[in-house]
Amino acid sequence: MNTPRKPIERFFTIIPAGGIGSRLWPLSRASAPKFLHDLTGSGQTLLQDTWDRLSPLSGADRILVVTGQAHQGAVVEQVEDLDLKNLVLELSPKDSTAAIVLAAAILAKREPDVIVGSFAADHVIPDTEAFLATVREAIEVAATGKIVTIGITPTEPSVAFGYIKLGDSLHLESAPNAVSVDKFIEKPKMVTARKYVESGKYLWNAGMFIAPAALLLEQLQKSEPELHAALNEIADAWDTMYRESVMHKVWPTLKKIAIDYSIAEPAAEAGLVAVVPGNFTWHDVGDFAAIAELQSAGRSGNLAILGNTKVLADSSSGILVSDTDRLIALIGVEDIIVVDTPDALLVTTKEHAQRVKSLVDALRATGHSDLL
Amino acid sequence: MNTPRKPIERFFTIIPAGGIGSRLWPLSRASAPKFLHDLTGSGQTLLQDTWDRLSPLSGADRILVVTGQAHQGAVVEQVEDLDLKNLVLELSPKDSTAAIVLAAAILAKREPDVIVGSFAADHVIPDTEAFLATVREAIEVAATGKIVTIGITPTEPSVAFGYIKLGDSLHLESAPNAVSVDKFIEKPKMVTARKYVESGKYLWNAGMFIAPAALLLEQLQKSEPELHAALNEIADAWDTMYRESVMHKVWPTLKKIAIDYSIAEPAAEAGLVAVVPGNFTWHDVGDFAAIAELQSAGRSGNLAILGNTKVLADSSSGILVSDTDRLIALIGVEDIIVVDTPDALLVTTKEHAQRVKSLVDALRATGHSDLL
Repeated sequence: MNTPRKPIERFFTIIPAGGIGSRLWPLSRASAPKFLHDLTGSGQTLLQDTWDRLSPLSGADRILVVTGQAHQGAVVEQVEDLDLKNLVLELSPKDSTAAIVLAAAILAKREPDVIVGSFAADHVIPDTEAFLATVREAIEVAATGKIVTIGITPTEPSVAFGYIKLGDSLHLESAPNAVSVDKFIEKPKMVTARKYVESGKYLWNAGMFIAPAALLLEQLQKSEPELHAALNEIADAWDTMYRESVMHKVWPTLKKIAIDYSIAEPAAEAGLVAVVPGNFTWHDVGDFAAIAELQSAGRSGNLAILGNTKVLADSSSGILVSDTDRLIALIGVEDIIVVDTPDALLVTTKEHAQRVKSLVDALRATGHSDLL
Repeated sequence: MNTPRKPIERFFTIIPAGGIGSRLWPLSRASAPKFLHDLTGSGQTLLQDTWDRLSPLSGADRILVVTGQAHQGAVVEQVEDLDLKNLVLELSPKDSTAAIVLAAAILAKREPDVIVGSFAADHVIPDTEAFLATVREAIEVAATGKIVTIGITPTEPSVAFGYIKLGDSLHLESAPNAVSVDKFIEKPKMVTARKYVESGKYLWNAGMFIAPAALLLEQLQKSEPELHAALNEIADAWDTMYRESVMHKVWPTLKKIAIDYSIAEPAAEAGLVAVVPGNFTWHDVGDFAAIAELQSAGRSGNLAILGNTKVLADSSSGILVSDTDRLIALIGVEDIIVVDTPDALLVTTKEHAQRVKSLVDALRATGHSDLL
């Protein structure tokens, strides 16, 4: 190599497309998880929105998608521009470390200086420009040898997210907003969340990571040497005729661990993690109440309707999601959540939206796994 | 003839099985109206319950059912003991006079001294013994040359029913509770309904009539001579090879008029109507709130469930009716009404149950008649 590539030229997007989204049952299923649905009414699925958000940055030929085998067909159909070379299929769910670090390792074999950025397939970020400006800064910081996360400026004391405690400015000319990360904090209690938000020293952890692939691998080698070795073994075989056999041998043995624990937290303790604050609206669309808010942003007195349009309703609040072509009539119900699918129907209220997860647990416990 | 038959031996039951039950949409449809459904959880449809209630009185071979052509299959399937000679199929809905008086006229041709009793197919009367005792008294009164109705002792000042104003006792030994009817009153306003109930001089009109068939025909001849002639023409042809041709010629021309207006009110003015008060519980199951009350009578803190049993619910009030095999999950919703059918879903509350009828009107107006 002659002159080293610029940071942005080294950048490669990883989209981990996993997670069932239990709190969005019965719309989101093991067989059709949340990223495969249009939850914003944009006319595109969350995966397609994520793709369109990132392709201007890395180029469509530099986006890798990690997803479950079962979703191969849907993903390929939804993302026409996906180079099949950049599709990594998991044999079974093994949590985020396996998904993201395997992708990083495969890319590092192809381009040792690659900087990867991992962005979940099921988040909603309406302001693409602000998002990309933040990621561009993060890429510059990553090039200095850091694991960089995007921290979202809190708009309320949420207990649904983890927080990032800010350290000192990095004083980087190419990334003026970058700050070191003091530590990551798990979802707090409300009283603590309030203090965090008031202090101005904490950001929401949106689970986005930008880093040189080599640095991620190095950190994993320190914290989880066996997992690192196993992922490296798969990555070595990936672009060879041994991919299938090595996958089937090694993948089932992988430790399930979130990348927050395997890499982010230990690296933060070692002073290797930076954060670029993101001043853009960000939703993880965790439950139906979140979808309802998303839908009615900017509109008041509206029932949000996703999917089916054969609806007769006099309700002025709540959300109706339909995956069928049935006629749906809502009379005099407010703050209602109705989710209509061919084999399951959910009726609840915005207030109880979070309880959908326990319902899914109850379904699993009562032998209704076919409906999950 | 030698000795005249006893009144009870002259008795023949007529069950008019009509009416769509708009306020029970989408369960009750033009294609499957309310009497074809199990709305009580008895394991039988309302029609079957009506049949079983009356057959001990008249004998199963002395019950005639009047229904729409479209329901022939369902009626024959549900009521195995129905003698097909006693099935009258309407070519189109022509209101209650045509249905009941045609049946009476057909029976009068067969047995000139027949006393008919007309009982709707979609009412709920839990106490069969009390009901039959009242009808037996009414038959005795009818045999004295009266049109007899059953009046229900009001339990509340309902505005959903018409009322019967009581006159003087008939002083009949065979029917000690029989009273003459002063007049029939249409559904009143609440303030009037309260006065009626407080006075003790008014009963609910449950639309049941017991009378000699000849007397019904005579009264109709006075009030609606054309309709009387037309119905007589059909009845003359009924048990002959001309039934079909006469039906197709005459039926479409029949005037649509409720028997309350064509016979009951004029006959009451003429002093020909009597009433036997019924001290039994009677429901016309007008809307889903009524079904919910019916279901939870004697039980508190219950969600009433009709049909589908694949239900996960933590709701302690309301009603869930399902015509599908979908799993239905209700979380944190109270006083809810959910009606789940293959092509339509209704979600409302007990408070708004009466508004289902306007919804059905709206559906008709917006070209969704296929769903009615």
